[in-house]
Amino acid sequence: MYQQLKEAAYLANMTIPRSGLIPVGSTWGNASQCDRQAGVMAIKPSGVDYSLLTVKDMVVVDLATGQVVEGQLRPSSDTPTHLELYRAFPEIGGVAHTHSRWATIFAQCRREIPPYGTTHADTFYGPVPCAPALSQEEVEAAYETNTGLVLATHCRETYRQVPAALAAGHGPFTWGKDAAQAVENSVILEECAAMAYHCIQLGAPLLEQYVLDKHYTRKHGPKAYYGQK
Amino acid sequence: MYQQLKEAAYLANMTIPRSGLIPVGSTWGNASQCDRQAGVMAIKPSGVDYSLLTVKDMVVVDLATGQVVEGQLRPSSDTPTHLELYRAFPEIGGVAHTHSRWATIFAQCRREIPPYGTTHADTFYGPVPCAPALSQEEVEAAYETNTGLVLATHCRETYRQVPAALAAGHGPFTWGKDAAQAVENSVILEECAAMAYHCIQLGAPLLEQYVLDKHYTRKHGPKAYYGQK
Amino acid sequence: MYQQLKEAAYLANMTIPRSGLIPVGSTWGNASQCDRQAGVMAIKPSGVDYSLLTVKDMVVVDLATGQVVEGQLRPSSDTPTHLELYRAFPEIGGVAHTHSRWATIFAQCRREIPPYGTTHADTFYGPVPCAPALSQEEVEAAYETNTGLVLATHCRETYRQVPAALAAGHGPFTWGKDAAQAVENSVILEECAAMAYHCIQLGAPLLEQYVLDKHYTRKHGPKAYYGQK
Amino acid sequence: MYQQLKEAAYLANMTIPRSGLIPVGSTWGNASQCDRQAGVMAIKPSGVDYSLLTVKDMVVVDLATGQVVEGQLRPSSDTPTHLELYRAFPEIGGVAHTHSRWATIFAQCRREIPPYGTTHADTFYGPVPCAPALSQEEVEAAYETNTGLVLATHCRETYRQVPAALAAGHGPFTWGKDAAQAVENSVILEECAAMAYHCIQLGAPLLEQYVLDKHYTRKHGPKAYYGQK
Repeated sequence: MYQQLKEAAYLANMTIPRSGLIPVGSTWGNASQCDRQAGVMAIKPSGVDYSLLTVKDMVVVDLATGQVVEGQLRPSSDTPTHLELYRAFPEIGGVAHTHSRWATIFAQCRREIPPYGTTHADTFYGPVPCAPALSQEEVEAAYETNTGLVLATHCRETYRQVPAALAAGHGPFTWGKDAAQAVENSVILEECAAMAYHCIQLGAPLLEQYVLDKHYTRKHGPKAYYGQK
Repeated sequence: MYQQLKEAAYLANMTIPRSGLIPVGSTWGNASQCDRQAGVMAIKPSGVDYSLLTVKDMVVVDLATGQVVEGQLRPSSDTPTHLELYRAFPEIGGVAHTHSRWATIFAQCRREIPPYGTTHADTFYGPVPCAPALSQEEVEAAYETNTGLVLATHCRETYRQVPAALAAGHGPFTWGKDAAQAVENSVILEECAAMAYHCIQLGAPLLEQYVLDKHYTRKHGPKAYYGQK
Repeated sequence: MYQQLKEAAYLANMTIPRSGLIPVGSTWGNASQCDRQAGVMAIKPSGVDYSLLTVKDMVVVDLATGQVVEGQLRPSSDTPTHLELYRAFPEIGGVAHTHSRWATIFAQCRREIPPYGTTHADTFYGPVPCAPALSQEEVEAAYETNTGLVLATHCRETYRQVPAALAAGHGPFTWGKDAAQAVENSVILEECAAMAYHCIQLGAPLLEQYVLDKHYTRKHGPKAYYGQK
Repeated sequence: MYQQLKEAAYLANMTIPRSGLIPVGSTWGNASQCDRQAGVMAIKPSGVDYSLLTVKDMVVVDLATGQVVEGQLRPSSDTPTHLELYRAFPEIGGVAHTHSRWATIFAQCRREIPPYGTTHADTFYGPVPCAPALSQEEVEAAYETNTGLVLATHCRETYRQVPAALAAGHGPFTWGKDAAQAVENSVILEECAAMAYHCIQLGAPLLEQYVLDKHYTRKHGPKAYYGQK
C-alpha cells in the first residue's frame, strides 16, 4: 500500500546525499511526504545508508497517532517532529531535515537568517526564524515532539511565506507542497545561510522590503511569472 | 531557424551546472547569446531542469521588441535584463547571470569587487562595479528592465574593460563576445570574489596599477601574447 | 593470516579518500583495526597511493611489541601513536588519523572543540579535547609514541564518551569499535569543527548540558533508540 | 624527441584540473619538467583546454636561450618565470604554478604563510615566503622574467627546504624533483594556506621549532623514515 507516497518520499530522500547537505557516506538527513486523505506520512527509516535504501524501506506512519502502519524498519528518530509540523501546518505536504553546515551554524548561534538578497527573497518571504530553545523539562519529557511543537508555535503566522525554520542548537527544518520541494528548500536555505554568514561579517544592509515583495511575488501567488505555466 | 545560435546558447547554459556556480540539482542561472544581424538572442527557458534541457527548448527573443520569436517555453524571467545589456553594449555577444556565492555576497553588501591580484587583472581591468539599488518605483514598474538599465548606465564607460557588474542585493551579470565567454567570466568573477572577500579580512593592498595594466594587456588588445594565435 | 582483520582495515582506509578529509590524490590519513585476542592490529602502509592499495598491503603489527608480524611494507609512520591508544583504551577496536582541515585548525590553535550543537552531541559527549604540546625532549626521544601517550593520558577519563582528540599542532585522532567507525568519527568531527569555527566567530552559546545528555543517550547506551535494532 | 620528458610534464599537468586547485573547466595553471643534461624543459602550451591536451602539445624550451626547440604551440606565458627558477635552483627538476585560492590570498596580501602545524612541516621547513613586489620598471621591461628573478633571489637560501614561494599580488610557484612533485607541493601548499588563514583569525601560535625539525627530517634527508624505501 501507499506505493506512490513511498516512492515520492524515497526519491526526495535520495536527493539528499547528492545535494552536498550532508557529509559523503553519512546517513544524515531525512525527508517525509504526507497524504492528507489517507492520514499518513512516509518517512526515511532511522540510520540507514542511502546507498542501500529502497522504496520498500520507507516507513508509513499515521499522522494522528504516530503509529507505524507499514514498514519493517524504525522510522527516523525525528518522526515526532515531522508529525507536529504536519499537524500544525495544514497546507504542507512534505518536510525535510538536515544538519547542513551553514544553516546549522545559525541554529547553533540561535540567530534567524535575515534576508540579504533576492536568492533569499525568491523562496523565503522574510527572515528564516530560529525557534526558542526547549527547557530541560521539554527535552526530557518528549524531545522530538516538543521540537516540533516549538517550531510550529513559532512559525504559525509565517509558515506559508517562509517554509523553513531553525531548531535552536540543532538545525534546519524545511517544508513544501511535497517532499521534493521540502528538500529543495533545504538546498536553497543552505545557500542563503552561507551568504548571510559572510554578509554579517561585512556589515551588509537588509534587502529592501519592496525588493523582497517583488521577488517573492514574481515566483509565488496569483501574479507569479517565474517558471513555466 | 536560429539553430546555430540556439546551440551556442544551449552549450553555454549547460556549463553552468558543471561550474560549481549553482547548487547541485538547481535550475538557477541563465546565459544568452545574440545575433546582431538577425536582431535576436537565444536564452534559457525559465525554471527548467538542466538535465532535461535541449537545444530546441532555447527561446529566441527579438532584441528590439522583447517578443518571443521562436520557442514553446517562457524565456528566463531575467530576459529584460539581458535585453537592456545587449541594447546598451553594442560589442557584446553573450550575457550570463548566476547567484554564485561569493559574487552575490558582494552584491548583497553593495560593494564593488576591488582588484587585489592578477587573477582579477587577467579578465577585469579595474574594480567590478556594483550598480546602485533600484528605487521602489523602479522595482514596481519594471523590475527586470530597470535592473538592466541601471547596470547599463553604471557600466557604460567600463563595460569593454570590465565584463561584469553586480546588481545590488541580487547578484552578478557578466558578458563577453558570446555566451560561452560570458559564462567563463562568471566563473572567473566568482573566484576573484572569493579571494577578495578574504583579502578584505586580512587587509590586503590593491594591486598596483602597473601590474593591472600589464596583466590585462598581455591577454587583451593588440599586444596580447597569452594563449594561442 | 589475519585476512578478515586486514580486509576490515583496508575497507576503512579506502573510505578516507572518498570522504573529503584529505586532498584529492594525496596519500594522507591512516586507519587501523585491532584484534584483541590475537594481540595485533592491521594498519595502512606508509605513504602509499590509495588507488594502488590492496588488502595484502595492510601491515599487521603486534600490539605489545610494536613489531611487524605480517606484511612487506613499512607501516604508517603514526603506528606508535595507534599502538599507545590501543594500549590505553581497552574497549576500542579501531583508530583513524587525518589532517582534515577544520579539526586540524583547532589542533594548530591548541583549542578544544566545544559542543555547540546536536551534531556534536550525537557522537561526542562533551568538548573534543586538545592534548598538551610535547616538550622538546618528548619529541626528540620518541615523537610518535609520546604523541600517543599524551593523547592517552589526556583522554583517559573521557575516551568512552568522546571518541576523538586533537594532537597539538598536528591534527585529530579518532577511535571507535572498529576502523570503519573510527573513520566515520573523523568525518563527523570534521563537520563539527567546521561549524564550531564559525560559531566562535558569531559568539554562539554552548549547547545546554541537558540537550547534550539527551542527544548522546538517544544514540548511545542502554536507552538508545536511534537507528535500527 | 624528448618523448619521456614531454610525457612526464603532460601527466603532471593533467593532475592540475583534478586537484581542485583551479576552477572546473578553466585552462589555469601550468607545470614543467626539465632535463638538465639535454638543457631543456617541457611545459604546457598557453591557454589550452586540459580536456584537449595531448603529450605532443607539450612545448620544449631551451633552458639557456628560452627558445622553443620543439612543439607547434606557444608555451605558457609564465615560461620565463619557470626558466629563471631552473637557472637559479640547480637541484630542481619540476616547477608548477596555479592561482589556487588560499595560497593566492596570501600572495595578494603579500604575506608569507607561517608554519602553524605538522602538515606544513612535513613539506615546508619554515615559512613559505612571499617575494617583494616588482617595480613598475621591472614589470614593464620583462614581467615574467623579473617575476622569476625576484622569486629566485628571495628564495636562494631556502629553496631546498621550502619548495614554494608566493609572487606578490599574483600567486604561488612550487618546485620539486620533477613536475609531479611540483604539482603535489602545490596541493599541499594550498591546504596549508587554507589552514593558516583560519589560524590567523583565531590567533594560533607558531609550531614549535623542534616539532618543525622533527616532522621535516622524518620525511626528508638521510634520517627519513616516512614512506617506503
